[in-house]
Amino acid sequence: MEDLQTIVNDIAKKYGSKDERGTVADYIPQLACVDPNQFGISIVTSEGQEYSAGDAEVPFSIQSISKVFALTLALQQEGAELWERVGREPSGDPFNSIVQLEHDHGVPRNPFINAGAIVVTDVLLTGSTSVEANARLLNFLRMVSEDENIDIDLAVAESETEHGYRNFALANFIRAYGNLNNEPADTLDVYFKNCSIAMSCQQLAHAGRFLVLDGQNGLTGDAITSSRTARRVNAMMLTCGHYDGSGEFAYRVGLPGKSGVGGGILCVAPGFASIACWSPGLNAIGNSHLATKALEELAARTGWSVFSNSIK
Amino acid sequence: MEDLQTIVNDIAKKYGSKDERGTVADYIPQLACVDPNQFGISIVTSEGQEYSAGDAEVPFSIQSISKVFALTLALQQEGAELWERVGREPSGDPFNSIVQLEHDHGVPRNPFINAGAIVVTDVLLTGSTSVEANARLLNFLRMVSEDENIDIDLAVAESETEHGYRNFALANFIRAYGNLNNEPADTLDVYFKNCSIAMSCQQLAHAGRFLVLDGQNGLTGDAITSSRTARRVNAMMLTCGHYDGSGEFAYRVGLPGKSGVGGGILCVAPGFASIACWSPGLNAIGNSHLATKALEELAARTGWSVFSNSIK
Amino acid sequence: MEDLQTIVNDIAKKYGSKDERGTVADYIPQLACVDPNQFGISIVTSEGQEYSAGDAEVPFSIQSISKVFALTLALQQEGAELWERVGREPSGDPFNSIVQLEHDHGVPRNPFINAGAIVVTDVLLTGSTSVEANARLLNFLRMVSEDENIDIDLAVAESETEHGYRNFALANFIRAYGNLNNEPADTLDVYFKNCSIAMSCQQLAHAGRFLVLDGQNGLTGDAITSSRTARRVNAMMLTCGHYDGSGEFAYRVGLPGKSGVGGGILCVAPGFASIACWSPGLNAIGNSHLATKALEELAARTGWSVFSNSIK
Amino acid sequence: MEDLQTIVNDIAKKYGSKDERGTVADYIPQLACVDPNQFGISIVTSEGQEYSAGDAEVPFSIQSISKVFALTLALQQEGAELWERVGREPSGDPFNSIVQLEHDHGVPRNPFINAGAIVVTDVLLTGSTSVEANARLLNFLRMVSEDENIDIDLAVAESETEHGYRNFALANFIRAYGNLNNEPADTLDVYFKNCSIAMSCQQLAHAGRFLVLDGQNGLTGDAITSSRTARRVNAMMLTCGHYDGSGEFAYRVGLPGKSGVGGGILCVAPGFASIACWSPGLNAIGNSHLATKALEELAARTGWSVFSNSIK
Repeated sequence: MEDLQTIVNDIAKKYGSKDERGTVADYIPQLACVDPNQFGISIVTSEGQEYSAGDAEVPFSIQSISKVFALTLALQQEGAELWERVGREPSGDPFNSIVQLEHDHGVPRNPFINAGAIVVTDVLLTGSTSVEANARLLNFLRMVSEDENIDIDLAVAESETEHGYRNFALANFIRAYGNLNNEPADTLDVYFKNCSIAMSCQQLAHAGRFLVLDGQNGLTGDAITSSRTARRVNAMMLTCGHYDGSGEFAYRVGLPGKSGVGGGILCVAPGFASIACWSPGLNAIGNSHLATKALEELAARTGWSVFSNSIK
Repeated sequence: MEDLQTIVNDIAKKYGSKDERGTVADYIPQLACVDPNQFGISIVTSEGQEYSAGDAEVPFSIQSISKVFALTLALQQEGAELWERVGREPSGDPFNSIVQLEHDHGVPRNPFINAGAIVVTDVLLTGSTSVEANARLLNFLRMVSEDENIDIDLAVAESETEHGYRNFALANFIRAYGNLNNEPADTLDVYFKNCSIAMSCQQLAHAGRFLVLDGQNGLTGDAITSSRTARRVNAMMLTCGHYDGSGEFAYRVGLPGKSGVGGGILCVAPGFASIACWSPGLNAIGNSHLATKALEELAARTGWSVFSNSIK
Repeated sequence: MEDLQTIVNDIAKKYGSKDERGTVADYIPQLACVDPNQFGISIVTSEGQEYSAGDAEVPFSIQSISKVFALTLALQQEGAELWERVGREPSGDPFNSIVQLEHDHGVPRNPFINAGAIVVTDVLLTGSTSVEANARLLNFLRMVSEDENIDIDLAVAESETEHGYRNFALANFIRAYGNLNNEPADTLDVYFKNCSIAMSCQQLAHAGRFLVLDGQNGLTGDAITSSRTARRVNAMMLTCGHYDGSGEFAYRVGLPGKSGVGGGILCVAPGFASIACWSPGLNAIGNSHLATKALEELAARTGWSVFSNSIK
Repeated sequence: MEDLQTIVNDIAKKYGSKDERGTVADYIPQLACVDPNQFGISIVTSEGQEYSAGDAEVPFSIQSISKVFALTLALQQEGAELWERVGREPSGDPFNSIVQLEHDHGVPRNPFINAGAIVVTDVLLTGSTSVEANARLLNFLRMVSEDENIDIDLAVAESETEHGYRNFALANFIRAYGNLNNEPADTLDVYFKNCSIAMSCQQLAHAGRFLVLDGQNGLTGDAITSSRTARRVNAMMLTCGHYDGSGEFAYRVGLPGKSGVGGGILCVAPGFASIACWSPGLNAIGNSHLATKALEELAARTGWSVFSNSIK
């Protein structure tokens, strides 16, 4: 295999200067004003080596990538009982669709569409205050990324709340079916703050390392989560991590990944590396246009694919 | 890792004698009359070692498992152009749903639901006679399984045709949208015969070995298909191989797999082994009840999972 | 034709004592506790003659019947422009479905399903305070029924708000598509109060008389609304007045009608009479079980049907 | 009221020369080649007086208007049992949608969408030969229009069969759910021939007169069908006669009507008149663009509306 630093340098150079960059999410001003010309990439290997290039230190809104870590916490807490409240199947619908919820009587298809993540948030909120619920995810992220500076961008969270009619619709609809323990506004308060956490590619790549290592903390060797849970979070990322583009991502990139409308994607090559890539412009399905292409190239050049064992 | 022969023996003993065995497909008499008390399993490792137990030599109707091999041939023939006629996303609908076809104007969601496989069959039929089209898949299967005795069960094919109203509906609907080159009855004739191929677990496990080896022929080292195509067929199996139970199979078993209503499942552990498991009774989603459970246990005992690199 | 008083007496006697009475709406305690053994009917002819029987003087929650009068006011105010924000087609879905809203990008199918009535309410609220908006409908109802005692049942309204998650979902969803001018909570406040107006069969039958008379006030001969608007409100009642049971009501009863989950139905025989019937128990579709049957019998005995001109 | 001959003359002159004429159905050559500049209208009053203008004597393909007469025959034959196999609700979907069929397990929403008419045809075919089944409808039409020259256009029927993939999809899908007694191809043979009957506006207006007269033969006073059946056919026309434009037709025209893709509309003003209007160009929903507008004007000028009893 080529040298990883060469690869990320090449990729950052190539995709950092592309003309066609997708469209920055514009449903809140805080996301709409992000400079689309940014591009960052970080790889953290299973051994803990980091390779970064481009705007890898610039924090961005992780948005739905937070769902990966919220699911990890909820699975630890609830185990298999979680699946009584949320499904495990790809949805075949856009990320914010409400149609499926009606067909399935308030049980979201999976934890990575908005409806499912709202239920996961409700699980984490039950028995806690909203401050505790947010602190729990934030502390988990600080721990796995070994960085105490990670925080919620409150201006983003406020703006999400103000413009979040569709998520209010989803939460109220789920509650109407009895699948929410808390008041919709309370659960959404925690949900919007979790989505508004700001992290850089470097921080995210470190944060994903336990998913590369079957749940282990790479530094200490301790279990951050069970091997079983880590594998299952990876499975959910592969089948459901890119909304209605999950099949195409699995086909083109061949690695578990989760995207956010902030333009970030976290990707896991089990046994090899955790990868974070970021470029704010989105494609039609709502995934980062350039980060998707960059990860496809990275997978091709490294040979990393869960569908093959032959590393170049 | 434990000895593979011990594992398959244990599994065949345990699942061969379970009381709860699911329900045998009954839409045609030829499938309805199959003895539900059968159970077979075969593993063929990347090195070509075979481990079998139970009814591993009994031929059964491979049904939708044929879609894996038809897709391989169609991808070789058409390359990326194939995806203009069929999608790559999990469907979120039952295997024989027609709803999605209307929403997407005759383009099936993926090649592993019936509608998608009918389009793949149409691709393979175009420019050939139906005899040639069937011979092509049959010869491919004989080649990859190294067994010239594999054949179509014509009684099954005839019965499929006679009772295939739903598939006739799908094919006519696709044709109405201009996404079928041949007359529906002609494409379905090839499709039904491909589905009616009879194979044993042993034959199937050998047939899947090239998907373990990044497209290579394990015996000769020649490329049966490109590494790229092999990975992509595996990706489709993981995201779409079990209809509306694909997410759950990925979550529980963690390996690419494809089921058929005959009760068989072909499973691929890239780099490690090809596995075929068979028990005729189906669960509510239409996948073999016991073969699913057996493969979950096999994955747990071997540690094979595309979502982890730590083999026990 | 038989004497109308005989007919209503017969009907009140027969349906007042039926065993099978449907199920009282139970989503709020205020409706759940209504005695299901009540049955009332009132006819007010085009000439103003009233024929009542049973519990015709007992006030009940008119619920969705308020949508008829809200639509009349909105059509007067907006004319054809109203139809840019709400459709005129039967929905083929339950009264509180959200699926159609997503397919049609926030434009409800018609003004008589909840989503459509929320938009109509928003139209009436725009440019007014919520107190004024409620007063407007209330005053209209007092005027057309010639009864100043009609009022909102505030306990019902409060309970609707508290349990109205599904309507909050609808309103937020519509707002997410930009088809609501006011905040969802503000529009719903007016909506819930309008639904919580309490009226008796007698009051309702009087209130519907202008729809019998092509928009005229039966007492004064003045126009309450234009002939055009009155006909169109009748048309909407016939095609959309009973949710997913509208076709069956047209088929069995043959008259424009609008039901509410309080168990009331308002029915219009153009040129002949306005009819209100009430029994709290609902059928599976959410329309009064016995009022539907009673109106079918009334139509058969009077010969009133918009699909025939031969009066017995 | 103005003189009816003046009205039809005005209308024929105005709509005969409009520039914007809609789009002629082009799914078969026999319909695609019809001259779009034609426009005809005929009124036959309850007393039997005929008023015609424009191309009122030119025969055209009645297509779905045949469903009105097929339903009349099926209701006579089966009575209420018919409704076990087909619903009575507006569909909220296009005329050839298959989505609803899957949701409702093969029971079409109503007899006026294609799927429902195929079931009605199957009812009429059961126990007869296909020749007899076609003869039955043809003879009924000849009788009610008092014209022995009405016939099937076999070139149209053949072309419908050749290009009828979507209808083959519907029929096979219905059969897959067990809601078709005959082979799909046999039922469709009768269905396509019924749709291919050619009639002029004059013939159609006469044919609809029994629906004006509560089922009576205007000439003899005999019952062609029961009063109950006539009203119910009118009810189905009002709620379901214009596919997904039924609500709008009821709203604008206010009369029961049934359209066909040949550009014809049959309209019934109970007690007053039967009206046939024809212009080949269709609007986006598949109903005649100019015939719809002409009927709206006719209703306004005559005052005919089932939602009012005040005739100008």
